[in-house]
Amino acid sequence: MSSTPDSAVRAYIDDHRAAFLEDLAEWLRIPSVSADPSRAADVRRSAEWLAAKLTGTGFPVAEVWTPPAGPDGPGAPAVFAEWPSGDPDAPTVLVYGHHDVQPAAREDGWRTDPFEPVIEDGRLHARGAADDKGQVFFHTLGVRAHLAATGRTSPAVNLKLLIEGEEESGSPNFAALVREHADRLRCDTVIVSDTGMWSEDTPTVCTGMRGLADCQIDLYGPDQDIHSGSFGGAVPNPATEAARLAAALHGADRRVAVPGFYDGVIEPTDRERALFAELPFDEVAWLRTAHSRATLGEDGYTTLERIWARPTAEVNGIGGGYQGPGGKTVVPSTAQLKLSFRLVAGMDTEKVQQAVRAWVAARLPAGIRHEVTFWGATRPCLTPLDHPALQSVVRAMGRAFGQKIRFTREGGSGPAADLQDTLGAPVLFLGISVPSDGWHAPNEKVELDLLMKGVETAAYLWGDLAQNGREA
Amino acid sequence: MSSTPDSAVRAYIDDHRAAFLEDLAEWLRIPSVSADPSRAADVRRSAEWLAAKLTGTGFPVAEVWTPPAGPDGPGAPAVFAEWPSGDPDAPTVLVYGHHDVQPAAREDGWRTDPFEPVIEDGRLHARGAADDKGQVFFHTLGVRAHLAATGRTSPAVNLKLLIEGEEESGSPNFAALVREHADRLRCDTVIVSDTGMWSEDTPTVCTGMRGLADCQIDLYGPDQDIHSGSFGGAVPNPATEAARLAAALHGADRRVAVPGFYDGVIEPTDRERALFAELPFDEVAWLRTAHSRATLGEDGYTTLERIWARPTAEVNGIGGGYQGPGGKTVVPSTAQLKLSFRLVAGMDTEKVQQAVRAWVAARLPAGIRHEVTFWGATRPCLTPLDHPALQSVVRAMGRAFGQKIRFTREGGSGPAADLQDTLGAPVLFLGISVPSDGWHAPNEKVELDLLMKGVETAAYLWGDLAQNGREA
Repeated sequence: MSSTPDSAVRAYIDDHRAAFLEDLAEWLRIPSVSADPSRAADVRRSAEWLAAKLTGTGFPVAEVWTPPAGPDGPGAPAVFAEWPSGDPDAPTVLVYGHHDVQPAAREDGWRTDPFEPVIEDGRLHARGAADDKGQVFFHTLGVRAHLAATGRTSPAVNLKLLIEGEEESGSPNFAALVREHADRLRCDTVIVSDTGMWSEDTPTVCTGMRGLADCQIDLYGPDQDIHSGSFGGAVPNPATEAARLAAALHGADRRVAVPGFYDGVIEPTDRERALFAELPFDEVAWLRTAHSRATLGEDGYTTLERIWARPTAEVNGIGGGYQGPGGKTVVPSTAQLKLSFRLVAGMDTEKVQQAVRAWVAARLPAGIRHEVTFWGATRPCLTPLDHPALQSVVRAMGRAFGQKIRFTREGGSGPAADLQDTLGAPVLFLGISVPSDGWHAPNEKVELDLLMKGVETAAYLWGDLAQNGREA
Repeated sequence: MSSTPDSAVRAYIDDHRAAFLEDLAEWLRIPSVSADPSRAADVRRSAEWLAAKLTGTGFPVAEVWTPPAGPDGPGAPAVFAEWPSGDPDAPTVLVYGHHDVQPAAREDGWRTDPFEPVIEDGRLHARGAADDKGQVFFHTLGVRAHLAATGRTSPAVNLKLLIEGEEESGSPNFAALVREHADRLRCDTVIVSDTGMWSEDTPTVCTGMRGLADCQIDLYGPDQDIHSGSFGGAVPNPATEAARLAAALHGADRRVAVPGFYDGVIEPTDRERALFAELPFDEVAWLRTAHSRATLGEDGYTTLERIWARPTAEVNGIGGGYQGPGGKTVVPSTAQLKLSFRLVAGMDTEKVQQAVRAWVAARLPAGIRHEVTFWGATRPCLTPLDHPALQSVVRAMGRAFGQKIRFTREGGSGPAADLQDTLGAPVLFLGISVPSDGWHAPNEKVELDLLMKGVETAAYLWGDLAQNGREA
């Protein structure tokens, strides 16, 4: 085989793969669960570990940033790193990812300790392996492979990284962080590495991401649990009211029934719907990945449209009254709902929150007090299909995967829109995770072959973007 | 004051009050929680303690009975005691109560340890103080006062006690126990001491009790929690479905919406409704007792009718998905509902269970599996207002309280109907608990003055029943 730039990249990656995986495992051992206040020190340790590692990678600047305190207190630390190109005309790229992870406990169904990484059958199992530490970390080896293969001592682009610590908590302080540091974050292109591909066999680039507004609704009825025989049927029951709210979220057509929820929604175009329909969607296989037995969703839309292009409402948790063994005949004192709303382009997160608050207030009977607490909101975003930087991503992936690259959207949410809005830069997505990776679920994993394709794509991308990535 | 039979009774009670309360406190320290399998040994210890105490009281027979094993395993032990009158024509009376208690834990809001009785301001605080150990225990001193005041060496009636150990678990094996021992339980009258009065100022006799059927509904969706962004809105969510079931329990008129639920219901008569309406019902005070801020219930009925004479459905507990701090954007794998149905005379517990099972099965979408587990069922019962034994109870209470005795019903449930059906004897109620006693709630208590009126009523009742209690 002749020594092409691509084979040089591959050789460099092969040589450094073992050390790369050892480092990643070390990072995954830090339980950086941002939703759990008792893990705050671990989230900080995770940020400090990454900053030190980026310095070791060669980034001249690697800092831990604490977001400005929001209404819910101080934010969890993010990591910023910068490696100037040295070329005066080089474009500036900002890579976004996050180092915090979802909660995980052995008793949730993990076969192994979620914070003790295990490699088995070409897969690395750990909380955060795919979402998102693995996908952040491939950029460290990617930029080194880029330098090794091109003989450069600094990247072809001005490379910036912003790796936040609150993504799994809805990024409550991220927008403020971006605003505070807008000058240093300034860039021509944002690359988000916190998404997935269609499948191992069908590499894809994502063109949009749903937004998220999630909240807790606390309902208060009797001041204490009361006897259901003596009082039941004559006073309001907060568990019943929580259920009535959750049930009223959707109509019989499974559309979200909160008045005003769909205001401004940009419908998927006919061309997008046709592209979606061309993807090799196998409902049986998809259901297996979803660990589910049937599809169910908004009337008039396909499964892919439901998860990519339509806003949804989901009950993430509900609780109230007696949940121990056996029965206990009480009218509960309190009940709680945890709801999340996925948003699509055109929706306004503030208006959605207001609509939900108004809807809750209007539905509860006298005698039930309530509080609605939104954990934060993440805006939706959508990348123009014709942007030249998107073509750079497609070419870099094509070289790494040796296949045609197709297009998808992402059902999940990330704070990409904050970057887009504040920095005025288009948002592109480079993610190599696959649906079976088990994001937010027990036994999360990443496919090692795909992880290394991510490294390789990152190694090709900076040169292509420097050459072709600017809009005319 | 001349030495009337009543003053002799009172003097005897005063002399023995301190020792009586010490004994009761000892019993209350045994955490006989029948719904909690880990407390089985304590339930047995409670039964053995009571049997020994009844022997000490003078009952020639005091035995611990283990109910025949039912579908859910062996039943918790009951106590049977017997004290023959010696008079050949004496009627036989069976006193029913229970020695098991509701679950209770300090963190539920108890100011003191629920199983360490505390006397404060004339009230005895402990789990079971009113429901039902206190009301069982007043019969021990009552029968001694009866003997002391009349100079008898055995009661004026053949006195039997059956104190079960599974009442707070829905008495799953009680009917079988009664059937098994029907010969030894044979009686002319059943006296249930497991109910309450209107208030401290308005002593009442209860004429009926609602039945109970309670169940747990387990719903199974995805095999594990899944990412709400990747899959939400396209697969069924068991927490949503649990909420939709709970919400569908009642219509907009707050009538129970389970088809067939009201089949056979005996409506309260105009005379009963008029009697209820005469009671000094103070909604503000009642709401304070209910620790609630508003009334809410079936359209067309008053609060008293709703809790006494109408069947109801209540959500005792609901749970599913993430209930920890913060948010977690998952579609939950499972969800659970705990429901209880209060039944009135004319309803068939089996048919209610079948109706609920059919209703659940018909409402769930494809992809949600379910199980419905009924914990047992307690039949409703209603005492004829014109029964002579009821007049004996009214007279005995009248002597103890020195007031006109009025009539109520009881919203709660007890297995009285099993006794009525199997033994062919009318069921009467003698209870001195008041609504503020906090049955099933934190800080349960009994008013000591009322507890001693219970002792006194029991002391008068046996003589009156022996003389007047038989039907013509």
